[in-house]
Amino acid sequence: MEQRISLITLGVDDLTTARAFFESGLGWRRAAVESEEIAFYQCDSIALALFGRRDLAADAGLETPDEAEASKEAGGSPAFQAVTIAWNGRSEAEVDSTFAQAVAAGAQPVKPPQRVYWGGYSAYVRIPGSPHLLEIAFNPGFELDEAGRICLP
Amino acid sequence: MEQRISLITLGVDDLTTARAFFESGLGWRRAAVESEEIAFYQCDSIALALFGRRDLAADAGLETPDEAEASKEAGGSPAFQAVTIAWNGRSEAEVDSTFAQAVAAGAQPVKPPQRVYWGGYSAYVRIPGSPHLLEIAFNPGFELDEAGRICLP
Repeated sequence: MEQRISLITLGVDDLTTARAFFESGLGWRRAAVESEEIAFYQCDSIALALFGRRDLAADAGLETPDEAEASKEAGGSPAFQAVTIAWNGRSEAEVDSTFAQAVAAGAQPVKPPQRVYWGGYSAYVRIPGSPHLLEIAFNPGFELDEAGRICLP
Repeated sequence: MEQRISLITLGVDDLTTARAFFESGLGWRRAAVESEEIAFYQCDSIALALFGRRDLAADAGLETPDEAEASKEAGGSPAFQAVTIAWNGRSEAEVDSTFAQAVAAGAQPVKPPQRVYWGGYSAYVRIPGSPHLLEIAFNPGFELDEAGRICLP
């Protein structure tokens, strides 16, 4: 598994406010991805994404944050952290093999590799020793260059 | 504020286990930073760091995760997310001006710019519309190249 990260996705409560902070406040430029639900910012070799917290939990196949909180109080799964990091591969086959490598290395499978509504192929594992989710994905709309850097439109 | 991210820091419960996952499991190479408390991995233009969850909360000047949980149940501050993203500048003065810009753009000040125990200068703000912390820091041991990419030892 190449040593790199493709995306950091922050689950936010108010996307309009968070977008305004980065765009009007800090002067960052949003990538040309048409979506009302998610905003992407190219940050050199990676992308920062802002996405609704509930949408992010659902994307990982988890309960919503409120359900996760209730489950945690009842001694269930660790609270959803509302942040994911993603490693993107170049094909569905690479997602399959990388997911298998991560699970063999002790990561807990959270969502097995599968086609997803946004047109890609995605899996989630939990990083051992932590509550954090790692997405392993192929997104045909987001090119990777030779060094594996993500290139947003 | 240049459009980039310098570090993603995951707050972990068991650093030994998390390190073993990335290093033995995935074959990643740890940067040559001598520390038992934190591990850094160069990922092209950014660094991934693994750090104890309580240490990370303390670094941001927050309550520990358990205290944050209790405070949240009592209607207090949002739960600590155990992940921070950092934007590194080239000087203490750049940390001061970027912190001021972020606050003027609506970010809640969490820790004003100050000298910190690891030899750098650091501030934290909360990203509007979200529970997430953005660190704004100068680390004299971590060079930034001309494009602002972090270069670990």
